[in-house]
Amino acid sequence: MIENRVRDCWAEGKPALGAWLMIPSSTSAEEVARVGFDYCCIDMQHGLIDYQNAVEMIRAIQIGGATPFVRVPWNEPGIIAKVLDAGAQGIIIPMVNSVAEAEAAVAACKYPPAGNRSHAPSRGARHFALEDLNASTICAPMIETRQALDSIDDILQVPGLDAVYVGPSDLSISLGFGPGNSDGQETFDSALTRIISACKSHNIIAGIQANPHLASRRVSAGFRLVTVAADIFQLTDIMASSLESASK
Amino acid sequence: MIENRVRDCWAEGKPALGAWLMIPSSTSAEEVARVGFDYCCIDMQHGLIDYQNAVEMIRAIQIGGATPFVRVPWNEPGIIAKVLDAGAQGIIIPMVNSVAEAEAAVAACKYPPAGNRSHAPSRGARHFALEDLNASTICAPMIETRQALDSIDDILQVPGLDAVYVGPSDLSISLGFGPGNSDGQETFDSALTRIISACKSHNIIAGIQANPHLASRRVSAGFRLVTVAADIFQLTDIMASSLESASK
Amino acid sequence: MIENRVRDCWAEGKPALGAWLMIPSSTSAEEVARVGFDYCCIDMQHGLIDYQNAVEMIRAIQIGGATPFVRVPWNEPGIIAKVLDAGAQGIIIPMVNSVAEAEAAVAACKYPPAGNRSHAPSRGARHFALEDLNASTICAPMIETRQALDSIDDILQVPGLDAVYVGPSDLSISLGFGPGNSDGQETFDSALTRIISACKSHNIIAGIQANPHLASRRVSAGFRLVTVAADIFQLTDIMASSLESASK
Amino acid sequence: MIENRVRDCWAEGKPALGAWLMIPSSTSAEEVARVGFDYCCIDMQHGLIDYQNAVEMIRAIQIGGATPFVRVPWNEPGIIAKVLDAGAQGIIIPMVNSVAEAEAAVAACKYPPAGNRSHAPSRGARHFALEDLNASTICAPMIETRQALDSIDDILQVPGLDAVYVGPSDLSISLGFGPGNSDGQETFDSALTRIISACKSHNIIAGIQANPHLASRRVSAGFRLVTVAADIFQLTDIMASSLESASK
Amino acid sequence: MIENRVRDCWAEGKPALGAWLMIPSSTSAEEVARVGFDYCCIDMQHGLIDYQNAVEMIRAIQIGGATPFVRVPWNEPGIIAKVLDAGAQGIIIPMVNSVAEAEAAVAACKYPPAGNRSHAPSRGARHFALEDLNASTICAPMIETRQALDSIDDILQVPGLDAVYVGPSDLSISLGFGPGNSDGQETFDSALTRIISACKSHNIIAGIQANPHLASRRVSAGFRLVTVAADIFQLTDIMASSLESASK
Amino acid sequence: MIENRVRDCWAEGKPALGAWLMIPSSTSAEEVARVGFDYCCIDMQHGLIDYQNAVEMIRAIQIGGATPFVRVPWNEPGIIAKVLDAGAQGIIIPMVNSVAEAEAAVAACKYPPAGNRSHAPSRGARHFALEDLNASTICAPMIETRQALDSIDDILQVPGLDAVYVGPSDLSISLGFGPGNSDGQETFDSALTRIISACKSHNIIAGIQANPHLASRRVSAGFRLVTVAADIFQLTDIMASSLESASK
Repeated sequence: MIENRVRDCWAEGKPALGAWLMIPSSTSAEEVARVGFDYCCIDMQHGLIDYQNAVEMIRAIQIGGATPFVRVPWNEPGIIAKVLDAGAQGIIIPMVNSVAEAEAAVAACKYPPAGNRSHAPSRGARHFALEDLNASTICAPMIETRQALDSIDDILQVPGLDAVYVGPSDLSISLGFGPGNSDGQETFDSALTRIISACKSHNIIAGIQANPHLASRRVSAGFRLVTVAADIFQLTDIMASSLESASK
Repeated sequence: MIENRVRDCWAEGKPALGAWLMIPSSTSAEEVARVGFDYCCIDMQHGLIDYQNAVEMIRAIQIGGATPFVRVPWNEPGIIAKVLDAGAQGIIIPMVNSVAEAEAAVAACKYPPAGNRSHAPSRGARHFALEDLNASTICAPMIETRQALDSIDDILQVPGLDAVYVGPSDLSISLGFGPGNSDGQETFDSALTRIISACKSHNIIAGIQANPHLASRRVSAGFRLVTVAADIFQLTDIMASSLESASK
Repeated sequence: MIENRVRDCWAEGKPALGAWLMIPSSTSAEEVARVGFDYCCIDMQHGLIDYQNAVEMIRAIQIGGATPFVRVPWNEPGIIAKVLDAGAQGIIIPMVNSVAEAEAAVAACKYPPAGNRSHAPSRGARHFALEDLNASTICAPMIETRQALDSIDDILQVPGLDAVYVGPSDLSISLGFGPGNSDGQETFDSALTRIISACKSHNIIAGIQANPHLASRRVSAGFRLVTVAADIFQLTDIMASSLESASK
Repeated sequence: MIENRVRDCWAEGKPALGAWLMIPSSTSAEEVARVGFDYCCIDMQHGLIDYQNAVEMIRAIQIGGATPFVRVPWNEPGIIAKVLDAGAQGIIIPMVNSVAEAEAAVAACKYPPAGNRSHAPSRGARHFALEDLNASTICAPMIETRQALDSIDDILQVPGLDAVYVGPSDLSISLGFGPGNSDGQETFDSALTRIISACKSHNIIAGIQANPHLASRRVSAGFRLVTVAADIFQLTDIMASSLESASK
Repeated sequence: MIENRVRDCWAEGKPALGAWLMIPSSTSAEEVARVGFDYCCIDMQHGLIDYQNAVEMIRAIQIGGATPFVRVPWNEPGIIAKVLDAGAQGIIIPMVNSVAEAEAAVAACKYPPAGNRSHAPSRGARHFALEDLNASTICAPMIETRQALDSIDDILQVPGLDAVYVGPSDLSISLGFGPGNSDGQETFDSALTRIISACKSHNIIAGIQANPHLASRRVSAGFRLVTVAADIFQLTDIMASSLESASK
Repeated sequence: MIENRVRDCWAEGKPALGAWLMIPSSTSAEEVARVGFDYCCIDMQHGLIDYQNAVEMIRAIQIGGATPFVRVPWNEPGIIAKVLDAGAQGIIIPMVNSVAEAEAAVAACKYPPAGNRSHAPSRGARHFALEDLNASTICAPMIETRQALDSIDDILQVPGLDAVYVGPSDLSISLGFGPGNSDGQETFDSALTRIISACKSHNIIAGIQANPHLASRRVSAGFRLVTVAADIFQLTDIMASSLESASK
């Protein structure tokens, strides 16, 4: 079997806890991975990160001991295959709002017969069998609009889908609130509940973007792929409080 | 006059508080600068940062509102001139242990007649007069060995030198202790006292590498160029505590 | 309000004059911006420029005092969102030939409810409200084929569209002439007239790629987003004439 | 006419022999080109190669004396145009399974009236006429699925298509075998035969990914665009045998 | 023999005319080289250019048809050897003020017995004999201080030295004037005269940094390695005049 | 203890066999390391490799299972410290011809009291004690001139020196032969013999640059740090033979 700490957590019934990487640097990626996260997810959508950065960050995450995930910029097969070939073991795909989009996401992540990913013995594939790669690779479309919510049961039945990943900020906007987490707003809370419950029914992992204050609550709610903190926001928070304490 | 927040602080009799950048990324550099530091120092010695990174980070620091400093890898005129040409306004030079080395540092940082820096209208110089550039640029050799300590009064009299910058960890090692800050060890404490006192006598700014816990103490002791926090260590600290709180 | 020199020009009823950047360098980008252009547009379509270049060039343009625009390689939501997240304030989208394509362009450029851009507090968005970002961001599809010309009135009525940008060379080719500007050819001239007139009817800004010889003529004709010169062509022109004068 | 060694080979009725580049380095690209290959193909699909790498590799291949090809990550007009603008003279497009996909590939590779590629005088186009560029540029969709095989005669009749390029490993997977070449398997062998025969009927060049052991057999079978070896696999093979002989 | 357009010019008794590259881009480097300059010199001292940029720019200059020169950041053997290994055929070394410094420059540029450059079959050396490389490589120390001027006859007798290159701006500063060219100032004018005359006596080529207005005058005065124009200054000049004419 | 495969080999009385990396790519570096070499040495002297490349290659070598070495461009403390901070565990220093130069090399490689390397908890040092880092780091000056040969016994007695590394090609040139290995030439052969014998006397490891044909002979002669093959030469060799066999 291919080592994948996130799958190991799930096999043990535990949540996988991750870090979100928006700084385009293998140096910070490796050090964050060394902290002990199960996975580190390179945010190619909203981080200012391109493919060359991502390749080096994947190596850095692995050498730091975490499992490399990538959130791709868009549900586009070219970039999904490229980051998998570089060694990503989980793919988070933004704005998957329909069964067709979920099927496209799976098709891009998995080799035949599960999907139609093209094969070559590149970095992520050279030393493994196709079946093992399909079994190891985690395909996690994002649920972050009302439209996706309305199709959740159908989306979760798309074969080959391993998890869904909630984008609470876009979901909140889509539900009529502002960006960020809208906990306490009934529509928002019930959306999360519905997603978790649907995931349980279909035996799919529920994941979500959290923050240090919300992470344990999300775990308690049933999420099993929980991003605890994003590097750039944590860094500026602590630098600001350091400066403040030095200025006193 | 050329804008330089560090010189402004000194003119007002206040300490300049800075951030230390070891992550080779203009993205994190800009966000850290936005936090409100007077200067951000790019560590080309111990950070995994090369010239191309440094150039982009200098722009990012400026757009974030702080004054860009660079610690060069070594007391070598080629790299000192290159980062000044890129727009650095302060240069911290490691391991300056003698008058001759301090004179070389100044010569590299300043145009004639103060030094022998070569001139061209590159980024850092194009829109300014030579005199103003010499007046604005801060040349800060590091005091970080017993040998430097023994020559401190002579070093401080080298014309054109603006500040010295204490490297407490190497100084601590040189004095026979381990790396890090050796506060409480008499030899170490008295070394800092001696540097501050000598700086006052010679009207030179005393600077030092600190951390969030030590920064205000260093300011109280008389340091006026105080680095409050280093990005990579702060980042991993807060990511670790975030993970810990999520794991509970 | 978010500062945007192009919108300021339009508010004052003046044309915005810009530079076109095809050299993948933040160094030349910053210096060109310092010349005084209202905007500098990074050409990711025909310039040999990738995302990493573009991010640094956006910072360089801003520090140089101009408003950063990007022409994206294609009407694809992934790259549009990525350059906006990096801080671009205007997006020029090539080969928009139909209402559906114009709607897709707007959807990618604007947050809900105007579009479906995904939100995260990345560089271009962190310090601003969604509404202000939508109001500031300029979405300018290109009109550069006969097909687009035939649909111009419908395209201009797509909600959220701020401007159109004429690509005279592709338009010329599409109309059966060679590449370049075909001024004097009746079909070409009347196409420009028709676009300007339709823009006025629908209260949309008309923009166009010009050159130093044509720029003032385009302004007189009613264009309000006029690119005056492209770096690489200007550079080689002047280097050639410099060499010629030296060779005499 | 624009120089293109591959077209020269075909004009002389000879096969063009190429190298496959998966190492993202202009240094290795140039040295491999110097070996004497007719073309070197930069694999942007499965090589860990991004656009910035590709641009420098194209120059390196040309200075080394071979004709630069690029396999793009996906049948997407943005990236096809960008590598052509950088100077690629042949484009291999993965996973073209239908007439519509082949038409899209041609449209992206050729200027009007043959296609709808947008024109600007960038590196690959500045010094040439549109007609010559269309005549020189080789558009080679990949045939690598059963679906493509079933449509082969229709695909080969798409106007503007110059060659097809067989991906034997994906084809093998699609036909129910494992990755790699499945020579000896009747379904696989007859697929190759059928492609060659269809190419002859429609006067289209048949190309294929080979290896040092299969290359001459592929040439004998009628292929005229034959990739002989891939850099990364050859490199590790010879380093392994070197280590083995040193260890004895 | 190794092709070197600068040596060819000299062999024909003609001046070699060059471009100065301060923009860190292989794209602009190639296009400037295509203009027809005999050499293009990459300015690693005052341009914001690092080694990785320089390597790609050397290839770009060669493919554009000019001979690649590099001005190194400092008289340091490591970087001199690295740019020669990358293919530079002329080295301009700043601030060579004494015989010892000139000898060190030659030693770094030439293989034994002429110097002590280390040999490996890297890009610039792989396909040539040592003797030919020594004969082709141009070692040109800069004369740009009063101190150098005072030692000019001794410096010019250092074996292996091919040319000297006047830095008029630093020389002007050293002579007590401001930066730039101080033509008309007797001390400055006679310094140039003296250098040309000494070069003739010792059969060494005299070179100088010029600009489009001064280039032909420098050639008339006897300089045979004359840099006509610098990319970044020419670019901003023409962009400024383009903007001005568009604004009328 | 810090893991170091080269030290492990020596502890077991076995030679360490390595690969030489001149291709500036972490992709090829990782794959070469996976082949099974004890060490991979990044050639920053003659490879076209800069610091940014080296940092990523060090990670790639480690993830591939080999111990990362770096040959620095020159005996200069700035770059030696920077590659050690990035994680290099062995440093090969070119052109060390005297005791003073050997002492400088050691001083740059080791922390006090063995040397004067500056300390910070950067990548290569963060998780280890100073003593362990000194014990693990291999400092290997190159013996590659007649001058070094003449001082070999003194050089080998410099405290802190772990190994010497013969550069046979420069040594051959220095001894009056051409570049390459001059086996069979008595002066050359006896030079190697003398180095091995002196190393044994002083309990220093003898290392040498070899090739696939010479490696086992060098091991038999007593060398214990033997580089078996260089990536770029092996790659072009095998690509050439592949092309040749395909052309038959």
